[in-house]
Amino acid sequence: MSISLQDIQEAARRIEDTVLDTAFERSRTLSEIIGAEIWLKFDNLQFTSSFKERGALNKLRQLDETERRTGVIAMSAGNHAKAVAYHAQGLGIPATIVMPRNTPIVKVQDTENFNARVILEGSNFDEASSKARQIAEQEGLVFIHPFNDPDIMAGQGTVALEMLKTKADLDTLIVPIGGGGLIAGVATAARALKPDVRIIGVEVENYASAYNLLHKLPPPPGGSTIAEGIAVKHPGELTMAVIEELVDDIILVNEETIEEAIYLLLTIEKTVAEGAGAAGLAAVMTAPEKFRDGSNGIILCGANIDSRILASILMRRLARKGRIVRYLIKIEDLPGTLSDVAEVIGDMGGNILEVSHQRLFGTVPVRKADLYVTVETRDVKQSQDIRQKLQELGYDTELLKD
Amino acid sequence: MSISLQDIQEAARRIEDTVLDTAFERSRTLSEIIGAEIWLKFDNLQFTSSFKERGALNKLRQLDETERRTGVIAMSAGNHAKAVAYHAQGLGIPATIVMPRNTPIVKVQDTENFNARVILEGSNFDEASSKARQIAEQEGLVFIHPFNDPDIMAGQGTVALEMLKTKADLDTLIVPIGGGGLIAGVATAARALKPDVRIIGVEVENYASAYNLLHKLPPPPGGSTIAEGIAVKHPGELTMAVIEELVDDIILVNEETIEEAIYLLLTIEKTVAEGAGAAGLAAVMTAPEKFRDGSNGIILCGANIDSRILASILMRRLARKGRIVRYLIKIEDLPGTLSDVAEVIGDMGGNILEVSHQRLFGTVPVRKADLYVTVETRDVKQSQDIRQKLQELGYDTELLKD
Repeated sequence: MSISLQDIQEAARRIEDTVLDTAFERSRTLSEIIGAEIWLKFDNLQFTSSFKERGALNKLRQLDETERRTGVIAMSAGNHAKAVAYHAQGLGIPATIVMPRNTPIVKVQDTENFNARVILEGSNFDEASSKARQIAEQEGLVFIHPFNDPDIMAGQGTVALEMLKTKADLDTLIVPIGGGGLIAGVATAARALKPDVRIIGVEVENYASAYNLLHKLPPPPGGSTIAEGIAVKHPGELTMAVIEELVDDIILVNEETIEEAIYLLLTIEKTVAEGAGAAGLAAVMTAPEKFRDGSNGIILCGANIDSRILASILMRRLARKGRIVRYLIKIEDLPGTLSDVAEVIGDMGGNILEVSHQRLFGTVPVRKADLYVTVETRDVKQSQDIRQKLQELGYDTELLKD
Repeated sequence: MSISLQDIQEAARRIEDTVLDTAFERSRTLSEIIGAEIWLKFDNLQFTSSFKERGALNKLRQLDETERRTGVIAMSAGNHAKAVAYHAQGLGIPATIVMPRNTPIVKVQDTENFNARVILEGSNFDEASSKARQIAEQEGLVFIHPFNDPDIMAGQGTVALEMLKTKADLDTLIVPIGGGGLIAGVATAARALKPDVRIIGVEVENYASAYNLLHKLPPPPGGSTIAEGIAVKHPGELTMAVIEELVDDIILVNEETIEEAIYLLLTIEKTVAEGAGAAGLAAVMTAPEKFRDGSNGIILCGANIDSRILASILMRRLARKGRIVRYLIKIEDLPGTLSDVAEVIGDMGGNILEVSHQRLFGTVPVRKADLYVTVETRDVKQSQDIRQKLQELGYDTELLKD
């Protein structure tokens, strides 16, 4: 193995004055909902909102004088970029971050705010990555890999020291896997401190890269996912070696469960998690029977999620739970009908969000129209009450399912 | 004054084994953005997500044996209901909560989950309140007022003890005012511990009830507000007496600033605040010049916000900041035009959310149509680039302002 408990303990001493020892707390409500003892490690509340600071700072603190003067380079449009830029700034080390050309300007600005030089290159991560390697060579910069580096892995492992310090008898750790840096560090630390601890990895279905390697399957398909932070097709060699040796099981989670996990963290724990950050909770929700015995520590590893994605998650869930519904009402195409319908819905406490008429297609007779009304209701019962009331008043009303 | 520092210190001892001593932390990023030293008290992270537990538990713990057996009653559809029901359950005291009839079933269920008896009565808060008084008398229950009660006020004041324990030299406390229970307790504790501390109250414009009383103005108009938790038209007599004596200033905040404060807390602090919970930050954003000197402690007093409201806040802000835009494109009403336009927008990285055609009204010539396209973009620059590209291709394109 490329790292040891001692490496991780040394990393902890190296970063403890700067990186937060975030809260690790039992969630009473999530434990009840899921039927398993759930503990949450709030590493989404680090200053740059992810655990990546641990590895980055551990790496930066070990550079020699020359390296510090020349500077470092990293390729990332996400949490690793922020972590490297932020701590390089703190140490007065010049940092260059290479991002793909289509990176949102907000992320570029966030990184530039930490005084980093941002270079936009390549149309995807692979192209940006090779550009970063190239610049590193040309300018003699230290390349800071996001995961396949013992110093990075050891830094990430410090999160497990904190969890076991708070709860020494923790039975299971649930750790998202992207490139594998976090789980490699965590597994090494936890297994050394508590040999019978269980280590469960989590990957998103389309990026089951470590899972497929372990099971000798072809690489995963990739594609779009809400869990961008762990959307990695090829884990590192160093991290894979640790995963093969120490990880007990990998659970694959789907997009809908991650969305639900983000929703639960927001509404119950009142905390923001990005897709990758909520993946651990999603894993427990996917296979709760595996977590019934003992205590389960879930690492909320990041909170950098786009506002629109978060808004969509909230709205989609309201629709799924029947609090935003669509009615199809067959009306006479006469003046006053919409006003009548709207009045009924309003009087019953429904909030009309959208109305559309359809007269041309399907089986609608002339002089009739299909009226589609999207309504926000207090709850499922109110949705049904509104439908019933409209029926009673002679409107042929259907409550549409998704 | 109806309460003293000693009452509050005794309350603290009464509740400390059960109510959380929540974090009180400096926010580096908010301090930079606002240009004032901002500290946040995370009382939104109490188990029932508001400070109301402090007063409720302090009250419940002082009931005698007979009162405990007979039980308590409260009127609230919000944080006070949850707080009373939750702690009554913990102490084995029967609790009845009266809510207005139009209360969302989710809130009823939340309260019933704490084993409380929920009674739906009255079409508004005043009616529900008199019903609660009536039941209290009939059944001999102890009525737990949400604010106008020295035990409630003393309980709420414990939050100030915690803030000054963490930071003894805190210069200013910023406290939302609904009925005034929180600020009465906080002002009493803080002024006693640090005589030169400054106490700033916050009210939402439509519910400037304490402000208007102090300035001998008529009661506020009321109406709809995002800050339901402080939408109180008449503060208590006991709380008003403390406010008159100890509060230095009251700042009125508008709806838009509260929305922005909720947004900043969510995206920067990664924490959920309801409207009333974000009102303190909104006050500092409203008049930052009043907070330039010294340190400012803001109480995030609650996190119970409806998912749809939260989603709307996120979406409206994207629109305001130009990340969701509407184009008006004057097109020839010919096959293929929409496809061309959509292709241009898609190729440039814009995500089309909605399309509508308008052919009937205004100055549109026959054979032409107004095409409205709502697009999500990465940033303002991309919105403008898309417009320019469409113009270059011969489409008369306007980027619509709200």
